[in-house]
Amino acid sequence: MTKVTAQMSVSADGFYAGPLFDGDGDWIDSAESAGFFRVTRWVTNAMAWRDRQGFAGGERDANSEVVAESFAAAGAYVMGRRMFDGGEVPWGEVPPFRAPVFVVTHRPRQPLVRDGGTSFTFVTDGVASAVEQARAVAGDRNVAVAGGGSLVRQVLRAGLLDELELHVVPVVLGTGSRLLDADLDLGDKEAIELTPTRVISDPEVTHIRYAVRGRAPLLLDDRGSGGGPTATTN
Amino acid sequence: MTKVTAQMSVSADGFYAGPLFDGDGDWIDSAESAGFFRVTRWVTNAMAWRDRQGFAGGERDANSEVVAESFAAAGAYVMGRRMFDGGEVPWGEVPPFRAPVFVVTHRPRQPLVRDGGTSFTFVTDGVASAVEQARAVAGDRNVAVAGGGSLVRQVLRAGLLDELELHVVPVVLGTGSRLLDADLDLGDKEAIELTPTRVISDPEVTHIRYAVRGRAPLLLDDRGSGGGPTATTN
Repeated sequence: MTKVTAQMSVSADGFYAGPLFDGDGDWIDSAESAGFFRVTRWVTNAMAWRDRQGFAGGERDANSEVVAESFAAAGAYVMGRRMFDGGEVPWGEVPPFRAPVFVVTHRPRQPLVRDGGTSFTFVTDGVASAVEQARAVAGDRNVAVAGGGSLVRQVLRAGLLDELELHVVPVVLGTGSRLLDADLDLGDKEAIELTPTRVISDPEVTHIRYAVRGRAPLLLDDRGSGGGPTATTN
Repeated sequence: MTKVTAQMSVSADGFYAGPLFDGDGDWIDSAESAGFFRVTRWVTNAMAWRDRQGFAGGERDANSEVVAESFAAAGAYVMGRRMFDGGEVPWGEVPPFRAPVFVVTHRPRQPLVRDGGTSFTFVTDGVASAVEQARAVAGDRNVAVAGGGSLVRQVLRAGLLDELELHVVPVVLGTGSRLLDADLDLGDKEAIELTPTRVISDPEVTHIRYAVRGRAPLLLDDRGSGGGPTATTN
């Protein structure tokens, strides 16, 4: 059955890139790219990613299997506008997705059809619509939220995300763009509960896959001294 | 050989408690405690923790072994002033530490000697001094940074931390007190590199132990298209 999934490489302190590029100079020289390069290095070292880009070499290891599995599981993608803007030119005529991509944007635009199975459809009526359009063409594979972080949060906030995989890279960045930031619209003493369904550990990255169980109130308990959890009074 | 270690239960988005209690009403009714209770529930369910508190029951499982190991490994503790203030009364005459505790504070105070091996010594000349005093009495066991989060960051920032274990609880809190927050004093394009040395996964919590390797510059790479990493130009 089709699931809506997202996966993101993050630092141990939860950043998927350095601080947002302010447009001054080249992105490649920015602190944003420096953080992004660090947390995604395990991907570019993986044979499965290199092969998809047409590069030789790379590691054929557990990390590469995680990448290969991600590519294979996605029947369609949903993508944020900023990620698309950054990728449109460098991805070229044969983008790595090889599946339909639905770009959430405010600017109407005709669909783009690329070689290798990738198309870009621009969706102007919101994230839920983009997810539905992706689901309609994903077959029995998954709808993968490609990113960026803002779109992942929108999908999570809207209750549309079934699975979130964090590739936790052993580095502390201290500052930058957080994947799970404050705009999740959680109420007072409310949380989003997850269940880890798979953990793969490697010296370069710890892959933690979570099933998203949904919103739940935060309860107090008796700190072990007696019976079960006690509900808070408000 | 004595290591300086810290361990903390955190949410998937990096919080060890809800938003800091503002003093209005009771702490137990606050959002801070609601978050704290959620991320530490696995501890209070663990037989090793309950046994140390004098409570019956609990789970005798991998999580309990992690707790037992933490107690056994600590020859002395370093603690923040706010954590001590919150614990002094509830810990009572037989606090759970059973080892010397060095409290980092600005307020001089005579040492307290409690039953069961716990003492509290108040250190007014800084975190490095507290770590050294703890090291001097830890024997061949570790100096454990008991918390809170602010003290863990101070020890990490000062380059004094050898090992950091994060007990990552599968919940998104959205807001609260972050363990790895922005006051780590990292330079532009600088990070703290870690190496995961042990990962234990359980449905309730993923335990990731990191060796702290220290500060390092963030480097760009060629994104897989050719040779090795390329240094940034600044």
